[in-house]
Amino acid sequence: MSFRERLKNIVEQVDGAIGALIMGYDGIPIDECILPDVSLDVQLLAVEYATLLKEIKRTVDVLKTGGMEEVSISTGELRVVIRALNEEFFLVLLMVKDGNFGLGRYLLRLNASVFREMLQD
Amino acid sequence: MSFRERLKNIVEQVDGAIGALIMGYDGIPIDECILPDVSLDVQLLAVEYATLLKEIKRTVDVLKTGGMEEVSISTGELRVVIRALNEEFFLVLLMVKDGNFGLGRYLLRLNASVFREMLQD
Repeated sequence: MSFRERLKNIVEQVDGAIGALIMGYDGIPIDECILPDVSLDVQLLAVEYATLLKEIKRTVDVLKTGGMEEVSISTGELRVVIRALNEEFFLVLLMVKDGNFGLGRYLLRLNASVFREMLQD
Repeated sequence: MSFRERLKNIVEQVDGAIGALIMGYDGIPIDECILPDVSLDVQLLAVEYATLLKEIKRTVDVLKTGGMEEVSISTGELRVVIRALNEEFFLVLLMVKDGNFGLGRYLLRLNASVFREMLQD
């Protein structure tokens, strides 16, 4: 299964999910699956979140409580769940605010190891 | 009930919780309840997270998907859950990594409106 197929799989399984991406800290997605009717500027979001994730990583490193594993940020309309894959890449799930957060987190965790292996090949 | 009593209440109810704080974006806590055997440098954590939260707020504002409501950051050893109270203050719950994340989030949400009212008095 390709990156995109796996991302699509996650988006289809989670109620309220609107997209999923694998991307680097440089803000450039490796691959993505975004539902066609989504009005969000995903490119802007990717760039902004990449910058933010670098800042979060820096903070986490300062506090020395283990490496960054998962970040979630909820706003009035959107929930973004992020799972670190390795030093270079992370997995992002975008969902509407009342989407199935629990299942989304679970599927990111479950798929993270597969994506990690795929990224090493 | 005082700020501290309410914070203590949250910490005592959540399995794996090690502390809770109300703090401002300037990194200075209004009040806190930290379990006595916690080795974490809470003051450093408060300062670092305040800086980070400002950065997250900026990103969220750029993306225009509603105001910041909840942030959670999980590392190898620690889970930090944050709920925005108003433009000045936020509520922080610190827990060990396998603490009861769901209950922690729920209690922060439940108590946020009470803290908001207390902060206005």
